[in-house]
Amino acid sequence: MTLLGHPDEFYMARAIQLAHNGLYTTQPNPRVGCVLVKDGVIIAEGWHARAGEGHAEIEALKRAQSPAGATVYVTLEPCSHHGRTPPCCEALIKAGVVRVVAAMQDPNPLVSGRGLRRLNDAGINVRCGVLQNEAMKLNPGFIKRMQTGLPFVRGKLAMSLDGRTAMASGESKWITSDQSRADVHRYRARSSAILTGINTVLADDPALNARVEFETLQPARVVLDTRLRMPPTARLLTLPGRNVIVTCSQDRSEIDTLQQVGAEVYCVAERNGKVDLSAVMDLLGRLQFNEIFIEAGPTLSGALLAENLVDEWLIYMSTNVLGDEGRGLFRLPGLEKMADKKHLSLCDIRQIGPDIRLTLKPA
Amino acid sequence: MTLLGHPDEFYMARAIQLAHNGLYTTQPNPRVGCVLVKDGVIIAEGWHARAGEGHAEIEALKRAQSPAGATVYVTLEPCSHHGRTPPCCEALIKAGVVRVVAAMQDPNPLVSGRGLRRLNDAGINVRCGVLQNEAMKLNPGFIKRMQTGLPFVRGKLAMSLDGRTAMASGESKWITSDQSRADVHRYRARSSAILTGINTVLADDPALNARVEFETLQPARVVLDTRLRMPPTARLLTLPGRNVIVTCSQDRSEIDTLQQVGAEVYCVAERNGKVDLSAVMDLLGRLQFNEIFIEAGPTLSGALLAENLVDEWLIYMSTNVLGDEGRGLFRLPGLEKMADKKHLSLCDIRQIGPDIRLTLKPA
Repeated sequence: MTLLGHPDEFYMARAIQLAHNGLYTTQPNPRVGCVLVKDGVIIAEGWHARAGEGHAEIEALKRAQSPAGATVYVTLEPCSHHGRTPPCCEALIKAGVVRVVAAMQDPNPLVSGRGLRRLNDAGINVRCGVLQNEAMKLNPGFIKRMQTGLPFVRGKLAMSLDGRTAMASGESKWITSDQSRADVHRYRARSSAILTGINTVLADDPALNARVEFETLQPARVVLDTRLRMPPTARLLTLPGRNVIVTCSQDRSEIDTLQQVGAEVYCVAERNGKVDLSAVMDLLGRLQFNEIFIEAGPTLSGALLAENLVDEWLIYMSTNVLGDEGRGLFRLPGLEKMADKKHLSLCDIRQIGPDIRLTLKPA
Repeated sequence: MTLLGHPDEFYMARAIQLAHNGLYTTQPNPRVGCVLVKDGVIIAEGWHARAGEGHAEIEALKRAQSPAGATVYVTLEPCSHHGRTPPCCEALIKAGVVRVVAAMQDPNPLVSGRGLRRLNDAGINVRCGVLQNEAMKLNPGFIKRMQTGLPFVRGKLAMSLDGRTAMASGESKWITSDQSRADVHRYRARSSAILTGINTVLADDPALNARVEFETLQPARVVLDTRLRMPPTARLLTLPGRNVIVTCSQDRSEIDTLQQVGAEVYCVAERNGKVDLSAVMDLLGRLQFNEIFIEAGPTLSGALLAENLVDEWLIYMSTNVLGDEGRGLFRLPGLEKMADKKHLSLCDIRQIGPDIRLTLKPA
């Protein structure tokens, strides 16, 4: 169907590149890019920048002088339903485009395929599935949440060569390099929320914000706090962005105090004396968080690993040795036999400054 | 000087390749390769295969129909002294070669440069230093031993993703893959000796031999055994190859028993209740061991790291998690502050089957 110019993959690759412009700002929406092509030439480009602003297709149409007769390349199926903005399908039909190429269908099973059908019914030629795997990587959180109600969970750990996250004393500044910490801040910035445990808050009083040199939505901070020990003076409560406290406590006065300093407090079921982690993930999905970034100590990280609640582990490894009295990476009580070991599989390995970053997923 | 053919580096690269044929068999001699070139064409190749057999130059001369007028490329300066074989310099002069290119001088400071001088005095054109760094990598142990009297020490460790070498129970079969263990056997095969501690022998009764499918000299086994607890029935004492026991004990009857089953027993100084590790390395150098391969538990590995006695660490890392009750990599008592951490620098990282192999050296 492309009489002139490149194959569909060429233009779709550009659309995916454009979608990346929204990497840090579209939450809770997906990152989407779009190009309009006429006679083999890109006549307009667009991407979704933030919730409430135009979808990628609308942004591209806005920039096109005469979209009639164009082919549309878009990284996600155009919507057919009224959300905060009118449906993109109608705008494309009205603009007179003749062909729509989508990388993937809408992951929401309730609407998946409807947009493409609407376009097809309007006489527009439709193709779907071009660079689908690459397009899916743009939105691991949005896709998982639409399909399961749960967010995509990324666990981050920084360790020494010998697998230690801190000295026996708890001292941990710094195991890894400036470059690794900058990389972590980029991951924080793309995340919808950063999740940690109350012990980390009490020990380090961390900021848990994204310190980057580009525009970003600040991720929400989520603290698991079974007994509601969060001090209302904690640093993270003073910073811009949402603070979500998940607890099993019903202590009305504590809850009031925290709500008065702007925190959102949610009560979930208790399991083995802690907040039920599955219930936490369910809550975070309902709060429309796409990507969760875990920055926690060995107890919470170990529990998340043991319960298979993490989709991707990022491990920053320095080439320093801390010795075997240092603190470990994962607390896994009851793991006593080699046969019980937890399998992960390696997806990526690369050098970050003097450190090594490993990306793994459950095997 | 090469009127025809390739630059000197081309022929030297081939000589280095030939030297690798001796990787597993030349102990205590160096690995050396040689090519003879006439009119830009390689007319003969040779390498040193094992102690007592011909040096690389002699092997190449043997295979040349008319070496007169040839250029000799050799990875190590030809010897000018009588060892187990007559000096190579005289053989080269007698053969009428016109030019000798060496990758490096003899590392023995007592004879370094003498061979090249002898050749030069005989009217032969001499060049030295071609691919020197590459040639040095052939013989890290021989070079270090000639220069310092000490062997090159390579420490090997196998760990889980979270830095554990065994379960709390001691169970450690297997953390890494078949492919990693095969790689370890190749390293054992190129080593002059494998060093371990008596606790490893008592716990695992290991063979500590090189199980490879090519011809190799079996490495000696060296066991550090301060109190001479070695059972004369230990498996390693029954296997081909030397067994060296290093102790502080003077117990004549124990020593006799071990000597009767073929072990060599050496007594060294005691330090902090253990064999003095510096004295051990000195002994191993005097025993003409070039490359030592450490396969030890966290206590001995930690002590060697702390005393900076290891030249290169090989760490095989699986992508499994054992949890923080497992045993650590390095026991480093007294390392309490982050500032005390041991720095290593990364030389190489590669995938071995499903595992990752890191090569590091002291920073």
